[in-house]
Amino acid sequence: MSNETNVTWHEHRVSREIREKKNNHKGCVIWFTGLSGSGKSTIANTLDHLLHQADLQSVVLDGDNVRHGLNAGAGMLKDAHGDDFSKRFGLGFSAQDREENIRRIGAVAEIFTQIGVIALTAFISPYRTDRDKVRNTLREGEFIEVFVDTPLDVCEQRDPKGLYKKARAGEIKGFTGIDDPYEEPTAPELVLLAAEKTPDILAVEVITFLKDKGIIH
Amino acid sequence: MSNETNVTWHEHRVSREIREKKNNHKGCVIWFTGLSGSGKSTIANTLDHLLHQADLQSVVLDGDNVRHGLNAGAGMLKDAHGDDFSKRFGLGFSAQDREENIRRIGAVAEIFTQIGVIALTAFISPYRTDRDKVRNTLREGEFIEVFVDTPLDVCEQRDPKGLYKKARAGEIKGFTGIDDPYEEPTAPELVLLAAEKTPDILAVEVITFLKDKGIIH
Repeated sequence: MSNETNVTWHEHRVSREIREKKNNHKGCVIWFTGLSGSGKSTIANTLDHLLHQADLQSVVLDGDNVRHGLNAGAGMLKDAHGDDFSKRFGLGFSAQDREENIRRIGAVAEIFTQIGVIALTAFISPYRTDRDKVRNTLREGEFIEVFVDTPLDVCEQRDPKGLYKKARAGEIKGFTGIDDPYEEPTAPELVLLAAEKTPDILAVEVITFLKDKGIIH
Repeated sequence: MSNETNVTWHEHRVSREIREKKNNHKGCVIWFTGLSGSGKSTIANTLDHLLHQADLQSVVLDGDNVRHGLNAGAGMLKDAHGDDFSKRFGLGFSAQDREENIRRIGAVAEIFTQIGVIALTAFISPYRTDRDKVRNTLREGEFIEVFVDTPLDVCEQRDPKGLYKKARAGEIKGFTGIDDPYEEPTAPELVLLAAEKTPDILAVEVITFLKDKGIIH
């Protein structure tokens, strides 16, 4: 590189294309959506294991790593003087709060795609418009909406965290599927029947899709 | 793997240790702090190039990829009905807004470290307590505070975006170094003299530090 260009090239990012070439796969967002207890997180982590074993770069974003950090809620934010400012920035469960929750996750997933990572997100994300907004921030083909289509009664029977029981008892308000709507995707890239198949088989279905689309080889 | 453990292991993340072993380096946050125009972003991108060429996993977080997404500001957020809700969630320049700005960036950087990536952040981050809070969310040794120590008069002379000129003219209020304080780090891991050395030399100084600490080899 000549001295002439020495000053300016530093300002450039390592391009996405160069990173994708090094990783030998493309970056994308695999957006799992479905009811609580539908199997989103389990499938995402199963898929993550398979991708990792195949030497691909991936990450799972779910409640475990955003609920106490990026999207901390009420009472979780204190300013320099010890004052709680989560009233303003902390996220609850109103429609607008849910929207902001999904918006931030989408923004982070986008950063991962920019460095050629396959970002697997596992959130109920019940509203169609919120999911579509994330889709619209990404390039054509890099938002892969995966509907984990587990019937409500199956989710409620599983109830791994006891949340449906609490929602039925009225201890939790605005619970998706009980007293807040879940809007099914109208044109998801994939539908996974998680009441009928194992997480391994479903993860392989996603991998087959990624191969078909040329995202991985 | 036996059927017995088949159900539970999927719930586990691919561990950070396994990812770090595959990447052949540790994850960490390299937090560049300094005045506008001090050289943070240029040094971060130079370093990113060098790390990429050495086959390490890294990412730059700076205004370019968070300002319009994760930390969108006034007028940039519309809800499903077209109502602007950035009044609540959009970030401005008050002390609390700046704190929330830095908090979110710290939370995202933490996710990167969890998958063994070296996250380079380039934000003025003028307040000591905000930076220390990010440090406290991370493990010992994985927050590397790098003070890009460029004198105000040099930054103001460079003024790459014409912001100092606007601040002096009163067109921008609360501008760091002019009418809002910059709190220098008291015990940064590194101090870079960006008025005296080239970005390449400074990036190598950071690499030397990372090697000394066993983060990279």
